[in-house]
Amino acid sequence: MSVRLPTLDEIHDAAARIAPHAVVTPVWRNASLDALTGAALYFKCENLQRGGAFKFRGACNAVWSLTDDEAACGVVTHSSGNHGNALAMAAATRGIAAHVVVPEGAVRAKVEAIEQAGATLHRCAPTIAAREATAAEVQQATGAVMVHPYANTHVMAGQGTLVLELLQQSEGLDTIITPVGGGGLLSGCAIAAHGVKPAIKMHGAEPAGAADAAESLARGSRIEHFTPNTICDGLRALIGESNLTALREHYVEVITVSDEETIAAMKLLWQNLKLMVEVSSATAFAAVLKQRERFAGRRVGVVLTGGNVDLDDLPW
Amino acid sequence: MSVRLPTLDEIHDAAARIAPHAVVTPVWRNASLDALTGAALYFKCENLQRGGAFKFRGACNAVWSLTDDEAACGVVTHSSGNHGNALAMAAATRGIAAHVVVPEGAVRAKVEAIEQAGATLHRCAPTIAAREATAAEVQQATGAVMVHPYANTHVMAGQGTLVLELLQQSEGLDTIITPVGGGGLLSGCAIAAHGVKPAIKMHGAEPAGAADAAESLARGSRIEHFTPNTICDGLRALIGESNLTALREHYVEVITVSDEETIAAMKLLWQNLKLMVEVSSATAFAAVLKQRERFAGRRVGVVLTGGNVDLDDLPW
Repeated sequence: MSVRLPTLDEIHDAAARIAPHAVVTPVWRNASLDALTGAALYFKCENLQRGGAFKFRGACNAVWSLTDDEAACGVVTHSSGNHGNALAMAAATRGIAAHVVVPEGAVRAKVEAIEQAGATLHRCAPTIAAREATAAEVQQATGAVMVHPYANTHVMAGQGTLVLELLQQSEGLDTIITPVGGGGLLSGCAIAAHGVKPAIKMHGAEPAGAADAAESLARGSRIEHFTPNTICDGLRALIGESNLTALREHYVEVITVSDEETIAAMKLLWQNLKLMVEVSSATAFAAVLKQRERFAGRRVGVVLTGGNVDLDDLPW
Repeated sequence: MSVRLPTLDEIHDAAARIAPHAVVTPVWRNASLDALTGAALYFKCENLQRGGAFKFRGACNAVWSLTDDEAACGVVTHSSGNHGNALAMAAATRGIAAHVVVPEGAVRAKVEAIEQAGATLHRCAPTIAAREATAAEVQQATGAVMVHPYANTHVMAGQGTLVLELLQQSEGLDTIITPVGGGGLLSGCAIAAHGVKPAIKMHGAEPAGAADAAESLARGSRIEHFTPNTICDGLRALIGESNLTALREHYVEVITVSDEETIAAMKLLWQNLKLMVEVSSATAFAAVLKQRERFAGRRVGVVLTGGNVDLDDLPW
């Protein structure tokens, strides 16, 4: 499914549209982690976003971009957790229905949050095919508008708004790194960053066990079939076609990290920032640690994408 | 050991003295936790203080209150963790030696931090008598100045500085609650709060398994012997004589909570604030949850005292 990429203007529009609802998340510095990496790190704390993840930005922009007629039947999506929760919360801000297709095996804390936000849950098998089929059924039965987690112009535009903030909250960033799963975040961020400051180098961080974006970039064509094997529940999706196009157009380099590296990075973030960051989020910092020489001496924006953790099932 | 209580002026002096070194920690609000308690909660995030705990305030004030001659032989203390780390870090800001007596069984993460801060460690048995005896030996051998964790005028004054900040960062607080162990924090905070705003009601929160402050207040005389039995490693100390006097003079009420209540409160704090708070710190919020009717409808300052957690040994 190919969708149009958003423009910088659309990302600015998205920022205005979500402003009444979303949090302008803080950017944190940490002397110990700077010393450890040799870089000046600017942590964009999206774990402190409404719903505990950046996903609220894209979902909120999508919900408030609907006409009243479109909005009347509500919205539907499939999500392993954070996007579903975000869409449920965004729908609630507009008073419309939300249907969320949740694969078996999703993080319990995230599923509970979706229910608490008032969405209707639809369970399915933990495959991308099952997720898409179930979402299509719900869409047909209810007339709800599909808000895809990443292959959606409004969603990408919404995610990109965090870079507009980050550039205002920091000084002279040389590079920005975000985790990459479906690529909605990274594509929106790349468009926003280069729209404002073309010299910024964009990086993605991907689990070695779900490295379809890195491999698709390397071989020059999109991998279409793929079984993820990673603890990073938020990064198991296949990168979207348009999202991959955006990564190519913006010369994004993707760094892969093992789950062990990610878990070690997660612990370091918790210990030093005193901030809860979920495992998928820690891939970005893991990549900075792993490829120290790429980042040392530079000003690096590190996007901490979420903080929704099942405290009874920590990865160490 | 009776020591003089600090005055409000001395707490203001302490604030000026530590300003070049300490963090003005943020105050966080949270809609979900407000809804849960029916109160307007103002979380003073001392887990984001230098060294990850409020203790840096008192230690820093003590270190920088020394004359050059006094400072030359360094400082010594006994501590289950946070005060030792704070004193080591404070000594480093002045370039003087720090000796820390650490009881066996202290939280590993805290002991490691003390070593990293450059202090000399001295191990002892996990009893208050052994701690005091070992500290006295070190003091005699080195000439270092003893900086007691709580029975020390400068330490109490330093801890009280957090209330000066909290009152500026919030509006119209009705009450403030802090955990109570030795009572250095609570006594300093009570003096500061009533110096600025006499109508504020002060509360302490104490583990049921270390409820010597509550019992001493109830029976009208200080308990002198006592074996703590609580998971709250930072709150096992016997309340100091002067600290108890301050609690009496300021009509402080102490609420006791079980370890189970504290652990549940700790989880709620982590899940909602996305902030790591150590178990001792969670007693204050546990007390607000337990005695909901005391706090509902009020503006409550809740001091989150520290965030130094051993991630491999979480209490749930």
